[in-house]
Amino acid sequence: MSEVATLCARARVAARQLAPRDRAAKDAALSAIAEGLRARTADVLAANALDLEEARARGTSSALLDRLALDPGRVSQMANAVAQIARLSDPVGHVLFESTRPNGVHVRRVSVPLGVVAMIYEARPNVTTDASALCLKAGNAVVLRGGSEAARSNAAIHAVIADALDACGLPRDAVQMLPPGNRDAIRELLQQTETVDLAIPRGGEGLIRFVQENARVPVIAHAKGVCHLYVDAGADVEMAARIAVNAKLQRPSACNALECLLVDAKDASRVLPPVVRALIDGGCEVRGCERTRALVQGVKQYLDRVIAVRVVDGIDAALDHVARFGSGHTEAICTRDVGHAERWRHEVDAACVVVNASTRLHDGGEFGMGAEIGTATGKLHWRGTMGLQGLTTFQWVVDGDGQVRA
Amino acid sequence: MSEVATLCARARVAARQLAPRDRAAKDAALSAIAEGLRARTADVLAANALDLEEARARGTSSALLDRLALDPGRVSQMANAVAQIARLSDPVGHVLFESTRPNGVHVRRVSVPLGVVAMIYEARPNVTTDASALCLKAGNAVVLRGGSEAARSNAAIHAVIADALDACGLPRDAVQMLPPGNRDAIRELLQQTETVDLAIPRGGEGLIRFVQENARVPVIAHAKGVCHLYVDAGADVEMAARIAVNAKLQRPSACNALECLLVDAKDASRVLPPVVRALIDGGCEVRGCERTRALVQGVKQYLDRVIAVRVVDGIDAALDHVARFGSGHTEAICTRDVGHAERWRHEVDAACVVVNASTRLHDGGEFGMGAEIGTATGKLHWRGTMGLQGLTTFQWVVDGDGQVRA
Repeated sequence: MSEVATLCARARVAARQLAPRDRAAKDAALSAIAEGLRARTADVLAANALDLEEARARGTSSALLDRLALDPGRVSQMANAVAQIARLSDPVGHVLFESTRPNGVHVRRVSVPLGVVAMIYEARPNVTTDASALCLKAGNAVVLRGGSEAARSNAAIHAVIADALDACGLPRDAVQMLPPGNRDAIRELLQQTETVDLAIPRGGEGLIRFVQENARVPVIAHAKGVCHLYVDAGADVEMAARIAVNAKLQRPSACNALECLLVDAKDASRVLPPVVRALIDGGCEVRGCERTRALVQGVKQYLDRVIAVRVVDGIDAALDHVARFGSGHTEAICTRDVGHAERWRHEVDAACVVVNASTRLHDGGEFGMGAEIGTATGKLHWRGTMGLQGLTTFQWVVDGDGQVRA
Repeated sequence: MSEVATLCARARVAARQLAPRDRAAKDAALSAIAEGLRARTADVLAANALDLEEARARGTSSALLDRLALDPGRVSQMANAVAQIARLSDPVGHVLFESTRPNGVHVRRVSVPLGVVAMIYEARPNVTTDASALCLKAGNAVVLRGGSEAARSNAAIHAVIADALDACGLPRDAVQMLPPGNRDAIRELLQQTETVDLAIPRGGEGLIRFVQENARVPVIAHAKGVCHLYVDAGADVEMAARIAVNAKLQRPSACNALECLLVDAKDASRVLPPVVRALIDGGCEVRGCERTRALVQGVKQYLDRVIAVRVVDGIDAALDHVARFGSGHTEAICTRDVGHAERWRHEVDAACVVVNASTRLHDGGEFGMGAEIGTATGKLHWRGTMGLQGLTTFQWVVDGDGQVRA
C-alpha cells in the first residue's frame, strides 16, 4: 500500500473508533488542543519562521507572506477558535425524522458522522486547526493536505493536535497529515474511494478545479462567489447605497463580497448617481455599462479594483443576468416591492438569497451557527455557509420487536 | 453544441421555469400523465411489443424479457404510481432552520428543487414514469437515459409525459430523453457540469461503476446491498428465525435482502440449528462456515442460491465483520441485550441499522414516505431509501430591512 493509502486506511480505522464517542470526550480533546497550542506557541512560531524564511527566499508575494505568517496573537486566536468549537452543540445524534409505523416499528433518521474527510487547502495555517476541530467535533477523522509553503508550520500544529488526542484517549490517527510535495499525492488521495468519504478543497480556483477534475470521492467545493445586488425601481436609495458599500467594501476579498450592481432602467436616473457616488467615496472604482455611463459622470470603463454596474430592464432582466453570470453563491435584491422580493426568493438559484440586506451577512457566525469550514458552492449535501451540520450525514434506525415485511 | 449538451441546456431552462411553480400546477401535470398513460395504453403496448420482438430475436434471457414486458395491468400500475406521487406532500418550501438574529435579520434554510437530474437506468420501463413523476413533483427537470432494449417503450411513454406537460402549461422540456445508443452519450451526459446537478444511476453493477468512473457531475449511486443479520447470544430464537426467513426469502432479489447470517459462538448451538432449519424449510440453501457445519447437519459449503452463515465470537467480531464485508446498505441485529442493541445503532456504519426487525423493512413505503427513486448507498446528500426529499436541496433566505455587516 502506498503512503497515501496507508494514511487514509489508518484514518478510516480511527473514524470507526471516534464515531461512537460522546460529546464530552470530543470536547475534552478540543480543549486539550487549544491548551496545547498555547503551551507550544514557541514551537509553532519557530516552524513558521522557517516557512517564512524559505518563502521570502523564493520571492513570495507579500500578500501570501501575510497569510502564512503567525505571531503569538494569531496562535492565540487559533486556540480560541478551537475552544469555541468545543462549546458548540454536538451535531451528532439529532433525530431528523421520527415515525412509529402501523406495524409498531419505530423509524428514525439520525445525524451521524460522515467518516473520513480529506481537507485540501493552501497557505493559511489556521485552516489546519479550524478544519481539524470541526471534523473532530462532528465525529470525523480528517486527512489534511496543506500547502507546501506552510509545511513546517502545519507539521508543528499537527504534532500538537495528535498529542492532545493521545492525551485524551482519542485515536491519534484521527487527524492525519499528508506530507507536502507535488500534486500526485493529492491525486492519489482523491482516488481513495474505500476510505475517504468526502474531499473539501479550499483555495484558489486552480486548486479547486484540480480537485474537481481528479476526484473519484465526492467533493464539496468552496469556490469563488460572483455576487450581485439588484436595486429595484422604487427602492430606498439610502438603503441601496448602504448595502452596496458594505457588500463591496467591508471586506472586498471575501467570497460573499459584491462584484456586480444591477439597477432597473426605469428608476436608474434616481437610483444610480447616489449609489455610485457612495461607492466611489468609499474608495471603489466603478465600471459601468453604456447606460450607466450616460447617467453618471466620471465612471470609467476598464479599471482594476472595480465593481461592475449594469442597467437592466426590470426584474426579469435582473433574474436572467444572475442566472447567466452569477456563480450561485449569494444574490441580493434591494426593493420595496413585496412581489419582487418573493420572486427573488423563489427564482434565484443560489446558496443564499438576500432581500434588503448585505451579501456579507451570508456567514456561519452571522447566522448564529458558529465556525464555518467554508461556503459550499455546489448544491449536493450542503449549500452555502457550512459548519458542523454539513460535516455529518445521517442513518436510518429501525427498532422493532420481531416485525417482518408483509 | 452536441445533441446531449443541447438536451441538457433545454432541461436547464425548463428547470428555471418549473422551480417556482406551486404544488397545484405540478400535481395537475402528474394527474395528466397518469390519465395519458391510461388513454394511450395501446400506443405504449404496441411500442413495447416491438421492443420485446427485437429482444427475443437477440436471444435475451427470460428474466430480462419479464422486466421489459408491459401489459395493460402493468401500464395501469404505472399510472397509479404517478397518481400516488401527485398525492404526496410537496417537498419544496419546507423551512429547515429559522432564526432572527440580534441585528433583526431573519434567516431561513428552505428546501428548493435540485435543478436538473440525469437518470441513467436499464430495462424496466416503469422507471421512466416513476423517475419523471418524482423529479417533477420535487420541481426538477430530468434527463432520462434508459436502456436500448426498452427504447421504443420509453419513447412512447416519454411522448405521453411531454404532451401532458404541454397540456398543463408546464415546460415540455422538463422531461428530456436521450436517444439510446452506446455509452458515449452517457459519458457526455456525465460531463455536463454547467447544466446537470445530479446523476442517479440505477441498474447492474457494470452501469453503476461506469457512471461513477466517468462522472464529473455529482453522483448518487444506488448500488447493491450486502446485508447481514447478527443473532446475539440470548436472542429470541423464534424471532431470529422469523426475521432471517423474511429478510432472506420474502424477495431475494431486493437489495435489502439478507446475504449473510452471523451468530454468536457462545450461543450458536442453541440458535443456529433452528434458524438454519427454518431457512432450509423456506427453500433456501445454506452455506456455512466450518463452525456452522459442525453444528448443523446437511449444511453444504458451495451452492448457488445461498445464504452465508458464520459463527463469530460475540458482538465485536460481528461489528468487525460488518465493517469489513458489509456494503453500508442495511445491517440488522437480533438481540435481547439493550447495550448490544445500542452498540449496533452507534457503531454500524450503514444507511440503515435495524434492531429486532427484518432488513426488508428499509423501504420508502414501509417508512411512510411514499415512492422511492432508489436506495442511496453513498453517504453524501442522501442515504438509504430516497424519495422526494432526497430530490431537493436547500437555499438560505435572508430577509432584512437594510442590515449590513458590522
